[in-house]
Amino acid sequence: MRIDFATEPARYRHWRLKCEGPLAWLTLDVDPSGGLFPGTELKLNSYDLGVDIELADAVQRLRFEHPEVRCVVIRSGKDNVFCAGANIGALAQASHGHKVNFCKFTNETRLALEDASEHSGQRYLAAVNGTAAGGGYELALAGDWIMLIDDRRSAVALPEVPLLGVLPGTGGLTRVTDKRRVRRDLADMFCATEEGARGRRALDWRLVDEVVPPSSWEEKLRERALALAAGSDRPADATGIALPPLDRQIEADRITYPHLRVALDRERRIAEIMVLGPSELPADLAGIHSVGTDFWPLAMARELDDAILHLRLNEPELGIILFRSEGDPAAVLAADALLETHADDWLVREIRLYLKRVFKRIDLTARSLFALIEPGSCFAGVLAELVFAADRTFMFSGTRSGENRGPATLILSSLNFGAYPMSNGLSRLETRFLGEPDTLEQTQKAICKPLDAEAAAELGLVTAAYDEVDWDEEVRLALEERASFSPDALTGLEANLRFAGPETMETKIFGRLTAWQNWIFSRPNAAAETSALKRYGSGLRPSFDPERT
Amino acid sequence: MRIDFATEPARYRHWRLKCEGPLAWLTLDVDPSGGLFPGTELKLNSYDLGVDIELADAVQRLRFEHPEVRCVVIRSGKDNVFCAGANIGALAQASHGHKVNFCKFTNETRLALEDASEHSGQRYLAAVNGTAAGGGYELALAGDWIMLIDDRRSAVALPEVPLLGVLPGTGGLTRVTDKRRVRRDLADMFCATEEGARGRRALDWRLVDEVVPPSSWEEKLRERALALAAGSDRPADATGIALPPLDRQIEADRITYPHLRVALDRERRIAEIMVLGPSELPADLAGIHSVGTDFWPLAMARELDDAILHLRLNEPELGIILFRSEGDPAAVLAADALLETHADDWLVREIRLYLKRVFKRIDLTARSLFALIEPGSCFAGVLAELVFAADRTFMFSGTRSGENRGPATLILSSLNFGAYPMSNGLSRLETRFLGEPDTLEQTQKAICKPLDAEAAAELGLVTAAYDEVDWDEEVRLALEERASFSPDALTGLEANLRFAGPETMETKIFGRLTAWQNWIFSRPNAAAETSALKRYGSGLRPSFDPERT
Repeated sequence: MRIDFATEPARYRHWRLKCEGPLAWLTLDVDPSGGLFPGTELKLNSYDLGVDIELADAVQRLRFEHPEVRCVVIRSGKDNVFCAGANIGALAQASHGHKVNFCKFTNETRLALEDASEHSGQRYLAAVNGTAAGGGYELALAGDWIMLIDDRRSAVALPEVPLLGVLPGTGGLTRVTDKRRVRRDLADMFCATEEGARGRRALDWRLVDEVVPPSSWEEKLRERALALAAGSDRPADATGIALPPLDRQIEADRITYPHLRVALDRERRIAEIMVLGPSELPADLAGIHSVGTDFWPLAMARELDDAILHLRLNEPELGIILFRSEGDPAAVLAADALLETHADDWLVREIRLYLKRVFKRIDLTARSLFALIEPGSCFAGVLAELVFAADRTFMFSGTRSGENRGPATLILSSLNFGAYPMSNGLSRLETRFLGEPDTLEQTQKAICKPLDAEAAAELGLVTAAYDEVDWDEEVRLALEERASFSPDALTGLEANLRFAGPETMETKIFGRLTAWQNWIFSRPNAAAETSALKRYGSGLRPSFDPERT
Repeated sequence: MRIDFATEPARYRHWRLKCEGPLAWLTLDVDPSGGLFPGTELKLNSYDLGVDIELADAVQRLRFEHPEVRCVVIRSGKDNVFCAGANIGALAQASHGHKVNFCKFTNETRLALEDASEHSGQRYLAAVNGTAAGGGYELALAGDWIMLIDDRRSAVALPEVPLLGVLPGTGGLTRVTDKRRVRRDLADMFCATEEGARGRRALDWRLVDEVVPPSSWEEKLRERALALAAGSDRPADATGIALPPLDRQIEADRITYPHLRVALDRERRIAEIMVLGPSELPADLAGIHSVGTDFWPLAMARELDDAILHLRLNEPELGIILFRSEGDPAAVLAADALLETHADDWLVREIRLYLKRVFKRIDLTARSLFALIEPGSCFAGVLAELVFAADRTFMFSGTRSGENRGPATLILSSLNFGAYPMSNGLSRLETRFLGEPDTLEQTQKAICKPLDAEAAAELGLVTAAYDEVDWDEEVRLALEERASFSPDALTGLEANLRFAGPETMETKIFGRLTAWQNWIFSRPNAAAETSALKRYGSGLRPSFDPERT
């Protein structure tokens, strides 16, 4: 079954989105029979990947289609329950790979909420009008403010450890200690208590920001949402741009978009992503708004995002993603110039922030990333980020005989120096040259200069340069070698080498928390038939191997 | 088979230690037939846990017994090979728990080298006089300076991914990116190349600090060692103190030391560590030097360290460590006062640094840590660190009927505010009150004041206070509940909750790198009979499930 990340509000089965001036109301009302996999019943507003795909879509649309929205309220459409977290039945029957990729995507969605709040003036208010457990509370934790209804019944809880023998792995543990800075022994108590914390205790332990009795709930909710909205810098009377469905053709061994061609080579386990440079660009800001999603950087970002997610979930055996590009580098730089000149415009800001998130998603994709810079390619500015996201980049030196294309070039723009930080908070170039501040400075002097293979290699911007004599063989050998390694060892290797330098809450979530969760998921105590995860709801008690590791 | 961490130079089978004025020569010459487990042959200076236990002992003795040593040279006693890393045969046949704890201990030993260099004026020079592969290169990476012999043959290498399908998990990946700051694509190439890097390339990629031809090797080595020694602040004519064997009695269900009683309750899966406060203390600095290892803080630290290591490796099913104490809190504070007054003395500095490392080892122990503060206990100053290292602490309120002991007290000393930082660089109290700077300030005002249960709970220093009516039942329930949870989930929970706030290279090693390595170790691609790890040396090619996760 192919998992599709494309959706739109009219097709939502689990969420309702209502905009009302500066406020948006995002209501979770899961259709129990609308699970992604047949046979699972999504009771009590529990979710599977399908529910989160809709949330991610809504969060994305709110940014682009609703510049007027300054605060988004997430609430439940059901009585007494906000959200019961990930659906255990769906989780227990999922493959290890699906579990891991499901958690990764939900983590990215929650971080997208925080990104909207921090960078885009769209704050999130979690209106916990019923119990929020596990992933349900983790969703609330991604908000700026958590309001809990004080009805003597509703609680926030992270019952994963006592109930299921796994972790609150969607950022929960990290946000409890590092965002809300809950005292560690209280966090320990909280995470060991199935029923969680209600009312006053939830407030005292800093698990929520406010407890409100049912009688004043609606009034306080609106008041708080408007207060959050008041601090926003979103424009007053802008018009959003619509995000229409992607023009996408999926075939057995290729996926075609207007600006992206994905070729699936199953034998060599390679997904080649060919990015096509812009063919035409608007002249000015009005033009950008007028073409909307047809503006090349945005169109390309949407297609790239979709392709990466497709590969993650639907093509787990394609272990290598090979980035190539084709087009006019000058046109890519012209697009960058538009993104830079109009950086203060709300839509341009959104496009840049979206590009940042797409590149982060690539950094966090558990596939080996290679980039090839060849005659005819257009790795400049924004597309050069793919070169720096890659684990290795090879560049063609000189020209190819029989072609009338000039030599390959790599061109930096000022946007490579901070517009698209990685999750460690540094640009890819800063991370790359952590040990060579002088080289970083040198590369800054090369902005807008077409660098040939020798110059790029000299500056440390590519891994190796090969001329026509060696190119095919060297590239073939590197890819074959990569495909021969243990896929798990590569995942671990890349997760370590890609993120040098400082750590942030985000890198802690994807490094520390995710790695531990993956370990736990793969252990017999979580994967065996006698595990808590498998026995949940059966009435049978789990049985554990008592050895601590 | 019980693994014993106590050893001494006369019993070493794999290392030779020779001191020569300001230099020490630590020579690795592994006895192939001296493996910890029968049937493994430690060829090519490959190591198992037994080899690392000797190294840890030597590093420790150098600090206490040899104040005159300012630079330690680690080199190989074999031709053409420095160290081939962890012995694959031993690793492949080890249980998952042993693998993980072996890696943890070797990580701690390598960090102890760096600690000696940074804080104790004892620098480490890795004299790589033959190929250093895998754990062998990781050992060199822990040094201040890596000299590689330029004999056209000797290389440094991290061949784990291509050869074994696991990670360089003893800090290698983290030190390559974060200590040596190797460019990520070069690090990727390096970690994918079985044969590693030699000579000029090793230097250009910053994998070593110096390459030296064989003809000038000995001369340059001594020159470099003396240069490193020159920067040291170790005392000129101090006399070391001997570290005699621990007075220790191991029985079926208890271990007895002079200042520590460990009771093993297998049914409830609890190891209770009762720490006994000092009975007598020297009056001054001369007295401290004169009693040497009998000085209570040092004696207690050595016993605690030994007990923790014993529990880690030999008692994996005891999932809870319960800290208790007995003695006079005033005497503990008097010991603290000595440690503070004489902080500038080299031996006192060593004792404080050792206490720091023991507490870090406790933080990193994958067992649930509980502390009980009761009438008669002496959790003050240095022992209060155990309270703050614990996942939860319960404190007895009031007195016990039928006892003539006064109420329990908790007393802080100034040493709780920075003398023993965790691996995140913060004190346990700073980490605890990350979200409450005001509370941290309040606790500072309470230094030296005996806090009863109510006061300690009010300040957030303990998790809960119970009086006689509830104590037994509450403590019993908490311990029983803990023992019922999934051991793996608890390991992940504690590894996340204990380390709020900033990350360091050290926390990255134990959080990110270790978690990924544990995951990989537990995956079929590493654990199955067809894995690279199991098939290493058999001539058979490994076979992998190609799915990326």
